[in-house]
Amino acid sequence: MTGVLVNGLPSEHISVADRGLLYGDGLFETLAIDAGRPLLWEAHLQRLLDGCRRLAIPAPDTHVLADEAARLCAGQARAVLKIVVTRGPAARGYAPPAVVTPTRILSRAPWPDYPAAPARHGVAVAWCATPLARNPRLAGIKHLNRLEQVLARAECRPPYVEGLMCDTDGHAIAGTMSNLFVVSGDTLATPDLSQSGVTGVVRTQVLAVARARGLDCRERRLTPAEVEAADELFLTNSIIGLWPVNRLGARTYPIGNVTQTIQQTLAAARAVALAL
Amino acid sequence: MTGVLVNGLPSEHISVADRGLLYGDGLFETLAIDAGRPLLWEAHLQRLLDGCRRLAIPAPDTHVLADEAARLCAGQARAVLKIVVTRGPAARGYAPPAVVTPTRILSRAPWPDYPAAPARHGVAVAWCATPLARNPRLAGIKHLNRLEQVLARAECRPPYVEGLMCDTDGHAIAGTMSNLFVVSGDTLATPDLSQSGVTGVVRTQVLAVARARGLDCRERRLTPAEVEAADELFLTNSIIGLWPVNRLGARTYPIGNVTQTIQQTLAAARAVALAL
Repeated sequence: MTGVLVNGLPSEHISVADRGLLYGDGLFETLAIDAGRPLLWEAHLQRLLDGCRRLAIPAPDTHVLADEAARLCAGQARAVLKIVVTRGPAARGYAPPAVVTPTRILSRAPWPDYPAAPARHGVAVAWCATPLARNPRLAGIKHLNRLEQVLARAECRPPYVEGLMCDTDGHAIAGTMSNLFVVSGDTLATPDLSQSGVTGVVRTQVLAVARARGLDCRERRLTPAEVEAADELFLTNSIIGLWPVNRLGARTYPIGNVTQTIQQTLAAARAVALAL
Repeated sequence: MTGVLVNGLPSEHISVADRGLLYGDGLFETLAIDAGRPLLWEAHLQRLLDGCRRLAIPAPDTHVLADEAARLCAGQARAVLKIVVTRGPAARGYAPPAVVTPTRILSRAPWPDYPAAPARHGVAVAWCATPLARNPRLAGIKHLNRLEQVLARAECRPPYVEGLMCDTDGHAIAGTMSNLFVVSGDTLATPDLSQSGVTGVVRTQVLAVARARGLDCRERRLTPAEVEAADELFLTNSIIGLWPVNRLGARTYPIGNVTQTIQQTLAAARAVALAL
């Protein structure tokens, strides 16, 4: 069987009239597959459904989605599952068609190799020049309009493994493919995403974990200077999990206690989920 | 023959791994076909090439593009030609691949019928609530990240034929699918597009025509109040040409001298182009 299902059928193609292609009119999710199962399924599903509501795209049947995901995950020790939902094919024009036939694409990709063990040793990051635009109508959801991330990602050159992005007002928002956390003393902060950025599934998990451990934990506006002045920095997404930042531009950072505690708690939560 | 060419071959499908779909990583142009030929070809081509430069997508060969356009236009009295250029298929991840194989899609669609003769009688428009984000890195070019236009367009309900959009700072920028011109006394103004919007091919033509006629003509920041207080308003794009606005919300507008003069000059330029 192929590693791609388009509306439930093995295929590797979509129509050139699909609004996902023509306008980025859709959403996506990227999940880790571990031991034959997608991790954090429920959280990814909820964000996808929230995105469908926000864009008024008819949501896929969650049982069908789970079934198709299970087909692609079966027998896979480690892999990546991507789900794309678009407003489907339509005649020319921005106006959503009266009758929407969404396109649903599930695809499996190889697990990425990170030989330098970034989760243990940390990564070097740098600021990107490409800014993130601010628009509350699109902030938070994982839609298909990702040119800003593409342009920012193209700026990342070794030794920098990830780039940090500010919005057009100069607030630090996120990595090109990750959420950002800042530890200062015994408080944890992550950028407010009401105007830009994607509310990462692991980000939400980290906030829950930190609050459960009694950490002072805030979603707020952060300046680049506040980020640089942090005691510890780390990045999260569903594939990398948690990567400590060991360097931002010229400054170096320790992999400190808060970072390690959260990383261990996430690993424990993952082990529990896999054991269920 | 089909009305679609994908990389020069009749096809109606692209790969699910195409970055145009996954990230909106590409550009498009929409041209009017008249008497078997695409109108304003050179201007559309230049904007497309400019977009390719700005996004660092290898530009298509202009002779190949012209040849494929000619194949789709041949024998068509009136139709719409759409060109899409994407960064092509690639492995997962925002980073542009080391070797890019762009996807080139040319498609022909029926000419839209506007039975109410909007170019003669004008159209009613209203403000949209969906704002346009500001990002100088993406402003001006006709890229595939068009969710804002999709959401705004979905707000347009009869009798409103088009919606006007402001940016997140509250400046009037454009219609969902058109550029906006404001006539006040003997001056013509159109929104500055350095932060948002698309520099329309007909918009550029109107500015040239107006300047050639000695009109005081400015690209500048415009507030919604300035737009509403105008003596005349009109919209432009490559398919509609020029539509006078006869109503914005509750206020009505005449189809005045400046609007008519520019409309006639555009029609004359079109007749000359077709006669060549």
